[in-house]
Amino acid sequence: MMMATRLARRAPRAVRPHAALFSSSALQIIETVQEFHDARRQLPAGTSVGFVPTMGGLHAGHLSLVRAAKQKCDVVAASVFVNPTQFGPNEDYSKYPRTFERDAELLRQEGVDFIFVPSAEDMYSKNHRCYVVPEGFDDLPEGLCRPGHFRGVATVVTKLFNVVSPTHAFFGQKDAAQCVLIKRLVDDLNMDVQIEVVPVAREADGLAMSTRNQYLNTEERAAASVVYRGLTLAKEHFESKKTSSASVSSNALRAIIEGEYKNEPLVQEIQYISIGSKETMEEIHEVKATEGAIISVAVKLGKCRLIDTITL
Amino acid sequence: MMMATRLARRAPRAVRPHAALFSSSALQIIETVQEFHDARRQLPAGTSVGFVPTMGGLHAGHLSLVRAAKQKCDVVAASVFVNPTQFGPNEDYSKYPRTFERDAELLRQEGVDFIFVPSAEDMYSKNHRCYVVPEGFDDLPEGLCRPGHFRGVATVVTKLFNVVSPTHAFFGQKDAAQCVLIKRLVDDLNMDVQIEVVPVAREADGLAMSTRNQYLNTEERAAASVVYRGLTLAKEHFESKKTSSASVSSNALRAIIEGEYKNEPLVQEIQYISIGSKETMEEIHEVKATEGAIISVAVKLGKCRLIDTITL
Repeated sequence: MMMATRLARRAPRAVRPHAALFSSSALQIIETVQEFHDARRQLPAGTSVGFVPTMGGLHAGHLSLVRAAKQKCDVVAASVFVNPTQFGPNEDYSKYPRTFERDAELLRQEGVDFIFVPSAEDMYSKNHRCYVVPEGFDDLPEGLCRPGHFRGVATVVTKLFNVVSPTHAFFGQKDAAQCVLIKRLVDDLNMDVQIEVVPVAREADGLAMSTRNQYLNTEERAAASVVYRGLTLAKEHFESKKTSSASVSSNALRAIIEGEYKNEPLVQEIQYISIGSKETMEEIHEVKATEGAIISVAVKLGKCRLIDTITL
Repeated sequence: MMMATRLARRAPRAVRPHAALFSSSALQIIETVQEFHDARRQLPAGTSVGFVPTMGGLHAGHLSLVRAAKQKCDVVAASVFVNPTQFGPNEDYSKYPRTFERDAELLRQEGVDFIFVPSAEDMYSKNHRCYVVPEGFDDLPEGLCRPGHFRGVATVVTKLFNVVSPTHAFFGQKDAAQCVLIKRLVDDLNMDVQIEVVPVAREADGLAMSTRNQYLNTEERAAASVVYRGLTLAKEHFESKKTSSASVSSNALRAIIEGEYKNEPLVQEIQYISIGSKETMEEIHEVKATEGAIISVAVKLGKCRLIDTITL
């Protein structure tokens, strides 16, 4: 990949201490699994490695993950890979924003030590057969909208973890079901990785940051704040009720959000309003004041599918 | 597990050099994933770790894997775990031989450094959802006989690799399709592990060593040598033909084996005689003299299912 090579400054393959040498000037851009394995083996035992997997198209939400990783770990690696197996046949794989040069510069400025930017051919050979299947996740609301999506996510995260061997990995709370999946994955497959979930990064009007927000036109962008507004109104209702009740009806919460979305003419479709367990994302009918829940939503606004989440 | 604790001598959790200290007297028997992760992190970067996964019931075949690992690696770990997810509902999970005390003593004598002996509950929590599915393997002859078996193998090997983090892992050639699967798995999921396949260990009369051979009664044991005799006759035919022909018909090879097995009254059923590609195990009709093949067979002899394999 030309862009990668232009920015790359490869460090020598000798063993090297991990403190001062890993400044931004030592950024390594690595394009193959084999090279990353070689580089990873050079790190001394005990090095904490923070990993931020991305599909590129970076925004402030991704950078908040990188900053959390920098704060916690000796070494930070990010990946930039638009993973074909997590896109459905009618989804936006081919037109998903690919802006590697800009992404690499942003990551360099944040002091990332390694960028892993593999090709789809290197990640999925033509003989690829083994997939990580998270049973039940296709029955969650997000799974029903995107059949096979979570299989793709579980598979690529397993692969990327095996490439990077992180001690910590950072995911955004916006993809709420994905965060639950990744914790399940790490437990089920006995990965020695600490999962860190970072709060949703938002624009000034509350819209959750997303690479796909660039698909919105001006009018749609102005209307998009409704998504988070519905969530905050539901949370306010929950907060006001939970002082007096042991639980709050999820139907009441759902009605508040639905009412708000139906008032916005540009909302074409409410795909789901899920009020689920923090552990499993399974639907909850009465949200206990002491336990809370995760509300997650998906709506179509113009051409764009927007998802968001709030924690009660 | 009482037996484990009796044999265990836990080393202190400080960082320690990996050469002389890892003599047999430092054998650590580890029963939980968390403890193995902790111990693994103590090994210096660059330590080569050889791993021999077993289901216990050790015989000379397993020990040949351990010796290959000792020869190649600084540190050797073996696991003893009868993996429930690779047994079918009508298979011998509950009566599979469990002889941990004897197994641990054999491994200690071979100079193994770590034995990982988890409980089924520690390996599979009640919330377990994520499985590694090797697509297509259930269509191989062995997969058709044991639906779901390869999913169980791929899942547990992924888990054990994540626990042990080996640099090298050792498998017996007897389970031919399993060896192909493990190589596929390591490639597909980008594991940084070198897979070493060790030749089949055999009794004096040629019977492939197997934990399940102890199910055979005296008469069946005497008859069991037919399994390998069929394979060697087919190989002799291939060797004699390949000097004069570019390829040898797999039907001719199959007929030789079948004839031999049908002559043995104690053979109840020939489950399959597969002549497959060395790369994929897919069936081959004409075996090229230059490429060869893997013959693998499964027969029922008395109560016992015997498998064996030979490479052309």
